[in-house]
Amino acid sequence: MSKSNQGVLIFALGGVGEIGKNMYVIQSDEDIVVIDAGLKFPEEEMLGIDMVIPDITYLEENREKVRGIIITHGHEDHIGGLSFFLKHLNVPVYATKLTLGLIEAKLKEAGILNETKRVLINSDSEITLGQMRATFFRVNHSIPDCVGVCLETPEGYIVHTGDFKFDQTPINNQYADIAKMAEIGDRGVLALLSDSTNAERPGFTGSERSVGAAIKDVFSKAPGRIVVSTFASNVHRIQQVVDAAVEFNRKITIIGRSMVNVVQISKDLGYLHAPDGIFLEPDEINKLPAEQVVILSTGSQGETMSALTRMARSAHRKMDILPGDTVIIAATPIPGNEKFVSRTVDQLYRIGADVIYGSSVHVSGHGSQEELRLMLNLMKPKYFIPIHGEYRMLRMHGILAEQVGVPAENIFLLDNGDTVEITGGKARYGPKVHSGNVLIDGLGVGDVGNIVLRDRKLLSQDGILVVVVTLSKQNGTILSGPDIISRGFVYVRESEELLDEANRLVTQTLTKCMEENVNEWSSLKNSVKDALGRYLYEQTRRRPMILPIIMEV
Amino acid sequence: MSKSNQGVLIFALGGVGEIGKNMYVIQSDEDIVVIDAGLKFPEEEMLGIDMVIPDITYLEENREKVRGIIITHGHEDHIGGLSFFLKHLNVPVYATKLTLGLIEAKLKEAGILNETKRVLINSDSEITLGQMRATFFRVNHSIPDCVGVCLETPEGYIVHTGDFKFDQTPINNQYADIAKMAEIGDRGVLALLSDSTNAERPGFTGSERSVGAAIKDVFSKAPGRIVVSTFASNVHRIQQVVDAAVEFNRKITIIGRSMVNVVQISKDLGYLHAPDGIFLEPDEINKLPAEQVVILSTGSQGETMSALTRMARSAHRKMDILPGDTVIIAATPIPGNEKFVSRTVDQLYRIGADVIYGSSVHVSGHGSQEELRLMLNLMKPKYFIPIHGEYRMLRMHGILAEQVGVPAENIFLLDNGDTVEITGGKARYGPKVHSGNVLIDGLGVGDVGNIVLRDRKLLSQDGILVVVVTLSKQNGTILSGPDIISRGFVYVRESEELLDEANRLVTQTLTKCMEENVNEWSSLKNSVKDALGRYLYEQTRRRPMILPIIMEV
Repeated sequence: MSKSNQGVLIFALGGVGEIGKNMYVIQSDEDIVVIDAGLKFPEEEMLGIDMVIPDITYLEENREKVRGIIITHGHEDHIGGLSFFLKHLNVPVYATKLTLGLIEAKLKEAGILNETKRVLINSDSEITLGQMRATFFRVNHSIPDCVGVCLETPEGYIVHTGDFKFDQTPINNQYADIAKMAEIGDRGVLALLSDSTNAERPGFTGSERSVGAAIKDVFSKAPGRIVVSTFASNVHRIQQVVDAAVEFNRKITIIGRSMVNVVQISKDLGYLHAPDGIFLEPDEINKLPAEQVVILSTGSQGETMSALTRMARSAHRKMDILPGDTVIIAATPIPGNEKFVSRTVDQLYRIGADVIYGSSVHVSGHGSQEELRLMLNLMKPKYFIPIHGEYRMLRMHGILAEQVGVPAENIFLLDNGDTVEITGGKARYGPKVHSGNVLIDGLGVGDVGNIVLRDRKLLSQDGILVVVVTLSKQNGTILSGPDIISRGFVYVRESEELLDEANRLVTQTLTKCMEENVNEWSSLKNSVKDALGRYLYEQTRRRPMILPIIMEV
Repeated sequence: MSKSNQGVLIFALGGVGEIGKNMYVIQSDEDIVVIDAGLKFPEEEMLGIDMVIPDITYLEENREKVRGIIITHGHEDHIGGLSFFLKHLNVPVYATKLTLGLIEAKLKEAGILNETKRVLINSDSEITLGQMRATFFRVNHSIPDCVGVCLETPEGYIVHTGDFKFDQTPINNQYADIAKMAEIGDRGVLALLSDSTNAERPGFTGSERSVGAAIKDVFSKAPGRIVVSTFASNVHRIQQVVDAAVEFNRKITIIGRSMVNVVQISKDLGYLHAPDGIFLEPDEINKLPAEQVVILSTGSQGETMSALTRMARSAHRKMDILPGDTVIIAATPIPGNEKFVSRTVDQLYRIGADVIYGSSVHVSGHGSQEELRLMLNLMKPKYFIPIHGEYRMLRMHGILAEQVGVPAENIFLLDNGDTVEITGGKARYGPKVHSGNVLIDGLGVGDVGNIVLRDRKLLSQDGILVVVVTLSKQNGTILSGPDIISRGFVYVRESEELLDEANRLVTQTLTKCMEENVNEWSSLKNSVKDALGRYLYEQTRRRPMILPIIMEV
């Protein structure tokens, strides 16, 4: 390993101070290596936004240095921003087999599959990225084929754990490479970037296998059809559903596009083992007796348009939930989705289905405090940068690091864009780099920002009133209108008096302006807006958006 | 007790299949007794709505029978709809002292204090309501002075528990009247209506006193100022904060209007015991050393405009959170508020405050499964109607009732408006009565409904485009426009091309209509809407609301 005093910069363009849109960057004088390119689901106040991805302006400005992007695993918060990234920075993508399978489906959809250089890696790979060299170690998580990254930089080894837990009884015997991690630690780790998602949770996270046992228990007792809803990407869990179906002589049908896709890809790539003929189309499975049926579906988050929710509302084209069905919701709600999941559970009970949900049929994919301490003890890093979590999680992860002996001054809590600069083995906060949210709404990328969102918020609260008047070019008299059209404000039929009075007020305001020779349009419009706004607020305590439109002919 | 075959009807106008807007009705041939008149906070899809209260059309149609309304306790989900109710049905209100104090503040605000007949009751009162007679029993809950109701009807005793738990070490020695409940049960209960909020939670709910111990523990260690945020109405918890402040020689200032109100009312009525001079104004307390300061505030739900959230954002007029402060959030998030609370916690940590939150500093006010079973065993009801809860909670409460011996066919799971009819001691489902949500938006009551909400939803997703054209009356040519104004759709500066093309498209569509002699306005407008909608969806995958306005001069 070449040691020098060039210095290394470590920062996140997404993933710290938030859950989602993970993107971490390690930069030496000559080279930039990017790890992950995820998306985030919009916050409540991002009305109408479909998803959020990292702003990569900084990388575009330094494009000649970017040697490649390493993807640690195939979850949306790690690959969901990759197409956008690659459209702007056509660099090689390094990923394991299943991850690459999932990525390729995305690149195909985005129409950039062929022009993208994809490099298949496994946990034994060594890749060269300019002056830097990356090796990998296998970790456990809620999707197969996850790796952590050990990056040899001019300053020393920098380790990025990826998302991880330590599962002592993993599905498909995908054991975590503990020995390799220990070896890396013994060689000396300059800085560790480690997953903080469950830093607030004491103890150890349960093994995925415990969910399999709970699922089998339900299968052994369910009198009729069984519906299992889980994250499409949780191939281990899907494997356990398949195993249970085999054991209890049931066939499986899959409902929900993402589930169909993931099952197909993981079967093709050898990550899901299922006997021939176990998967049936919905109309075929409907011919079987109830006790031979499993319905595997998306919708574990109670999303309005998801398969489970639509089946529960009898609004799915191909499948209904029926009285006597047993529904397993094998997932916990992502923060913010609690109410949607509860609603779905209520709906299922109302139909007369039995519902199994909660901690017995789900374990997290992220390690709890003991596992985070174990990782720290294996890696024995000089510097520690907790990543992948809200601020309180990063903070708690920092406390855990202190507890296992990392000095407080060697722990760096970052916001997106904050940098840690390591020169000559010494780390300190460096200059901030540009970072931010790119909002995606439909096909639009970045054409919706704060002003548009503020308008949507206003519109959503009290609606809009459009006031249209046509004035004469000659003498400024009102030729037509004022017409007031409202949407999302009040029931027009119930509020005729209010709107009539509003109309009179606009006429009066305009007439007064004319008399006073106010004829700048912006002044006219503001006068109408102010007078009408004041009146409506007095009468209704609402502040609809008011859009005066004055035409001249 | 007079027995007859007249029959009794039991139903909810709010509170079943939902959390909030509680209103239960017991009706004999001659008389109607109403229990509680609460509000509910709006669901996510009720954009811009401030609150939701029960539709009381049925009671208005039977107004000559309504003998009075009994309020079990002073929480918003039991009194928040009372002013609206009384404006439409001026009947006597029966409530205990603290409850009445809180109600009177509301009635005063609504300007109906003087014309409302208020009757003070305590747990020993007996009141006559037409042919019916009500007695009461004290229960524990997260606000003092709560009662359950035992109503003697022509058919027998009907018991409504109110919100309750069994606290074996209550604050202010407000013990639940277990002996009285047992006595009622021994007399024979025809039907029990019981609080289902925690029916899914095993075991016993902890005592409020355990929170006091946790608070004192924090007080004993906190190096600087202490901020305690909790529900304003939790007078017991506020009492324990006062006690801790006395013990550790701190003074208290109160931030947040509802907290100021409740503290004033409960002090005045003797429910809160505090030494003179312990409460200081914010500017006085700021003169004290940090270790003598307690800030008692609202905002435990992370609500954007609440005291705690504003202090955390340094956006409060009178008080900031400072590094070194210890913040206790003595409440758990109400479902749907989890993310807001997490954000506030993050914000507080970023400031450098220490934050104590979660189950150590909060207990629920509602009994868990063992307490629900205990209530059932005390009352030994012939018929059981679980109330106050989402469907899954009612269902689970029904299962608990079966477990303690109520026959399944004697358990009634109701939706709002469903009735249980008891005649000659036999219960069955009766005719449905009218029920519903009344939405309150600003001063408007009931003037916002599905169409307005649907418009707000549309507006919030993709915004609006207003298209204005002035046509000539003579020959239909375009005199002015088309002008396109958008709000909440795209950044106009970044989308000039799109909007220019949209403009051309409108002109073209209108011209074509004119050529084809289409001159009905609705057809013109629809043509513009369709053409523009299609074009914008193709280009952006968004569906903004399109409002064509055609003027003729």
